[in-house]
Amino acid sequence: MVICNYSHFKSISITPSTNRCRYDTSTPRVPTFRCNSTLNSTQLRAEPEPVFTSVKSFAPATIANLGPGFDFLGCAVDGLGDFVNLRVDPDVCPGEISISDIHGTGTSVKKLSKNPLWNCAGIAAISVMRRLGIRSVGLSLSLEKGLPLGSGLGSSAASAAAAAVAVNEIFGGKLPVSELVLAGLDSEQKVSGYHADNVAPAIMGGFVLIRSYEPLDIIRLTFPTEKELYFVLVSPEFEAPTKKMRAVLPKEIQMSDHVWNCSKAGALVASVLQGDLRGLGSALSSDKIVEPKRAPLIPGMEAVKRAAMEAGAFGCTISGAGPTAVAVANDEERGREIGHRMVDAFMNDGNLKASAVVSKLDRVGARVISSSSR
Amino acid sequence: MVICNYSHFKSISITPSTNRCRYDTSTPRVPTFRCNSTLNSTQLRAEPEPVFTSVKSFAPATIANLGPGFDFLGCAVDGLGDFVNLRVDPDVCPGEISISDIHGTGTSVKKLSKNPLWNCAGIAAISVMRRLGIRSVGLSLSLEKGLPLGSGLGSSAASAAAAAVAVNEIFGGKLPVSELVLAGLDSEQKVSGYHADNVAPAIMGGFVLIRSYEPLDIIRLTFPTEKELYFVLVSPEFEAPTKKMRAVLPKEIQMSDHVWNCSKAGALVASVLQGDLRGLGSALSSDKIVEPKRAPLIPGMEAVKRAAMEAGAFGCTISGAGPTAVAVANDEERGREIGHRMVDAFMNDGNLKASAVVSKLDRVGARVISSSSR
Repeated sequence: MVICNYSHFKSISITPSTNRCRYDTSTPRVPTFRCNSTLNSTQLRAEPEPVFTSVKSFAPATIANLGPGFDFLGCAVDGLGDFVNLRVDPDVCPGEISISDIHGTGTSVKKLSKNPLWNCAGIAAISVMRRLGIRSVGLSLSLEKGLPLGSGLGSSAASAAAAAVAVNEIFGGKLPVSELVLAGLDSEQKVSGYHADNVAPAIMGGFVLIRSYEPLDIIRLTFPTEKELYFVLVSPEFEAPTKKMRAVLPKEIQMSDHVWNCSKAGALVASVLQGDLRGLGSALSSDKIVEPKRAPLIPGMEAVKRAAMEAGAFGCTISGAGPTAVAVANDEERGREIGHRMVDAFMNDGNLKASAVVSKLDRVGARVISSSSR
Repeated sequence: MVICNYSHFKSISITPSTNRCRYDTSTPRVPTFRCNSTLNSTQLRAEPEPVFTSVKSFAPATIANLGPGFDFLGCAVDGLGDFVNLRVDPDVCPGEISISDIHGTGTSVKKLSKNPLWNCAGIAAISVMRRLGIRSVGLSLSLEKGLPLGSGLGSSAASAAAAAVAVNEIFGGKLPVSELVLAGLDSEQKVSGYHADNVAPAIMGGFVLIRSYEPLDIIRLTFPTEKELYFVLVSPEFEAPTKKMRAVLPKEIQMSDHVWNCSKAGALVASVLQGDLRGLGSALSSDKIVEPKRAPLIPGMEAVKRAAMEAGAFGCTISGAGPTAVAVANDEERGREIGHRMVDAFMNDGNLKASAVVSKLDRVGARVISSSSR
């Protein structure tokens, strides 16, 4: 038995489906799991029927730990992300989900488990099924990774968000966004810790502030639509040592640094809402607590930041826990030039190959790409 | 000689005016002081002439350390404040200022020095004269204290702000607001520490975020004009032990508390800009770092906060360093009821008499009330 938290208040038990279900044809099958939650009130709701036979969804990459916004500020970026193909599958036991396929360009995709209990998309899908009270329909999920693993671009959150939206949509979209975020958070908790600053923007789009975790309370921060905002994302070929990245975080913080970061976080929020790109960049660059500890663990990062600023970026910091560096600009062409300089700096100072992408803010979040009723 | 910083970058020396000036009538005079800054470039500007013979100004009370906004978030409240009467005085040596009179309702007013170098209004006035390069005109200042000292309502900042605006105005208002804030900060630094979250809103009005101290960089946070916002200010008859109030501040902060306060500060900024009074109140109440240390030093404060919330306040915290408690409401009548309950709680739990005032946000800041050319 594996315990899987479906929210931060309650836990439910999820048991491996060892008994064959009635659809079982006795051929070997990929592992499927069922939420063993018959006593929960959610289950007593009328069970929704599938509205579609299949749904394809997408969820964008995200930048968490935005400068001084460690663990509570994140945003979504367009053009990069993960896809989920979900279908009603009579070969899967009712109330269960199976992961039929995982593919993507990076070699790291092979690391991903097809066991839904150990896969970000699977955990989020199970959580949504549970919240909807699905007992009579089995689902099959195919995951298409557009994001590399462990890059600091919210790869796990994108998979979870795409899966959550797909499962909700196939049953008529009955759950509100807040429930989808909770489902995504179930997944994040399992794979990378109980933080919502990737999965909330991956689902909601735009900038998101986590006001509270208990209960989960999220504010959408709308960057003015008439303003241009480009993210320059530069990912080196380097595996950020996750354990070290966590271990290096200070447990205690000087009061003066606290006030500094706190005021910069406030300034970042104000800059987003006021569409002040210069202020946003300045605040993004100003973290005195997390970035100074983590940057030295990513070869070349400090030089990359300097290069970005010298090339005209408004600000630059580590995306998530890295190793991707993110800079901001108000012009696509300038963004590309900044990207070149950052790539060069990774090579010259860190001896790392890197690639750059210039993306806009994704204001939509996880979305349905297509759906089919037959 | 007394050193008086005129900005946080440079210091100037201010010397007691021991030599009689040409206007001296040899009668005993209140002490006057001159900025000894002949070498500074500011002085090389064309000296402005007085546009008025007298000016009366007002500056509002302010709430600093707004909840999780310790040292960087403050706002101005209307209806309470200090007045300054300023006039060109041929009996005062050119380039000097004299404090002719200080009066007000509270007994604590007697504690205030008429020596301009040791008086908030005097220091700010000297700083503005210096910034304008005033060498040929002497000024006389009368201070009318509407705010009690040491109440946590920005009494010293209001005096400084009113004086700064009056001196600037009498010479034609040539200095920008940013310079007036720096002048006010010179005063605050001398009397209560280098923090701008009282004096910036006292001069600028509304909500103000201090983005940086070096260099000073301030963001105005506009609370939507169509929204109602009432502050319930309840001041007990109690002298908050300033030294203890400072000594009790933690030097180091747990990472989890830092993230908590930081996210609440971000939420407070967002709530102000979005006009979300419920969010504003919630964030205001959420400080885990400063308020829990200071509240126990103000008899009854914890009960007062509870009483405010039970009476329907959206939030409640300590104003500045106390002892005033501030709660927020969206209705004046409700605000008065909340005030009664808070006064009762101060008496019942802290054995302290207290008085309540319900004020709106002051959106204007320090202003000229009247001026005369002859």
